[in-house]
Amino acid sequence: MSDLHTRVANSFAAQGLMATIGARLAMVSEGEVHIELPFSGALSQQHGYLHAGATTSIVDSACGYAALTKAPPGFEVVTAEFKMNLLRPALGTHYLAVGRAVSSGKLLTVCTGELRAFT
Amino acid sequence: MSDLHTRVANSFAAQGLMATIGARLAMVSEGEVHIELPFSGALSQQHGYLHAGATTSIVDSACGYAALTKAPPGFEVVTAEFKMNLLRPALGTHYLAVGRAVSSGKLLTVCTGELRAFT
Amino acid sequence: MSDLHTRVANSFAAQGLMATIGARLAMVSEGEVHIELPFSGALSQQHGYLHAGATTSIVDSACGYAALTKAPPGFEVVTAEFKMNLLRPALGTHYLAVGRAVSSGKLLTVCTGELRAFT
Amino acid sequence: MSDLHTRVANSFAAQGLMATIGARLAMVSEGEVHIELPFSGALSQQHGYLHAGATTSIVDSACGYAALTKAPPGFEVVTAEFKMNLLRPALGTHYLAVGRAVSSGKLLTVCTGELRAFT
Repeated sequence: MSDLHTRVANSFAAQGLMATIGARLAMVSEGEVHIELPFSGALSQQHGYLHAGATTSIVDSACGYAALTKAPPGFEVVTAEFKMNLLRPALGTHYLAVGRAVSSGKLLTVCTGELRAFT
Repeated sequence: MSDLHTRVANSFAAQGLMATIGARLAMVSEGEVHIELPFSGALSQQHGYLHAGATTSIVDSACGYAALTKAPPGFEVVTAEFKMNLLRPALGTHYLAVGRAVSSGKLLTVCTGELRAFT
Repeated sequence: MSDLHTRVANSFAAQGLMATIGARLAMVSEGEVHIELPFSGALSQQHGYLHAGATTSIVDSACGYAALTKAPPGFEVVTAEFKMNLLRPALGTHYLAVGRAVSSGKLLTVCTGELRAFT
Repeated sequence: MSDLHTRVANSFAAQGLMATIGARLAMVSEGEVHIELPFSGALSQQHGYLHAGATTSIVDSACGYAALTKAPPGFEVVTAEFKMNLLRPALGTHYLAVGRAVSSGKLLTVCTGELRAFT
């Protein structure tokens, strides 16, 4: 595994929530990180779809780690804010959150994320 | 319990994610809903604070149910979009998400939510 | 000009603000609309760059018209909400706002927009 | 006028866009700034209401100046991002944008803003 992957994987392993919901680090490259999540009723909202909180959990982590791959060694990133659009019900047997760094500055890195659902 | 409380409690009980993270419906009134969450390492991000995904999960549910208290009987609500600002690290032994309906229309209801941390 | 262009151009011409700031409808296709804006000191913020309000004006109109190209004949669109990220100072002699419809539903259409600066 | 008011007023006077749309600095106090705007057809969207871009212009400036009142002397602020919810058509003879600093950090200040319409 590359240094980049190790850096992200170590931090990912320290996120208790990722284990709790069953998320897995799927891909790390410079500026882009993927996180995989199998569907489970334990993650549902009231109609049985994936809860927006579960969606947000993996998209936020994917975006945060995409930002981390752009940060100098030794630096950490934390989320300051984000916006989610829930385009349609999150139906699927598993999901992939794709986070990408769009613009990386000294203080702020802006990322885009998307959730893909697979049936 | 009031009809309003029952309506929200039934839907809350159907949200698998709320049980998974240990959240509890704390208060329901017209236009305002509170959800309580004890801290656990199972909900952490990499520095040991509450993960933004856990924060979002209870704030989103609190806001959604605040909107539901304003909806005509028989109607359901789903989240179309939201914006989160993470003002500081979410440190606490337990948290309270407060969701409030600000403006309620035929198609869209706008809510504000906040997370309070208790030590 | 296509019917689509005429439909958008008629509405654009009724937007007083577009004339006030000097914006021009540059391109209309199904799901994508471009609006052009020459820089002027009359549109500046305190450091002489384009004010975020001017940026927003043309990006919002471009996105709104991108949504309109997806709406059935006779329907109108209005903006319910948006999020802006200002990645860097808006420096340029002219700007192009590009609005694109991402997801078009019966009640809500979600668009992405960007501002390009030319020197 | 207080030093605080002078500091904000000088910067406001340098914003070309505020003069172009006819906005006026109405109140400055620590953490809160008001900007007034009379309605004019020159600021309209296609149905004759205030364009979201004009709304955003004064709410963004009001929030930016609310943040500036919390910044140490000699510091400047710029907008990194914002979210707007347009709750109903902006109908009125004049408007007041109210910006308030909610949380003020070393790198980021978070503000809330609202637009009030008067008939």
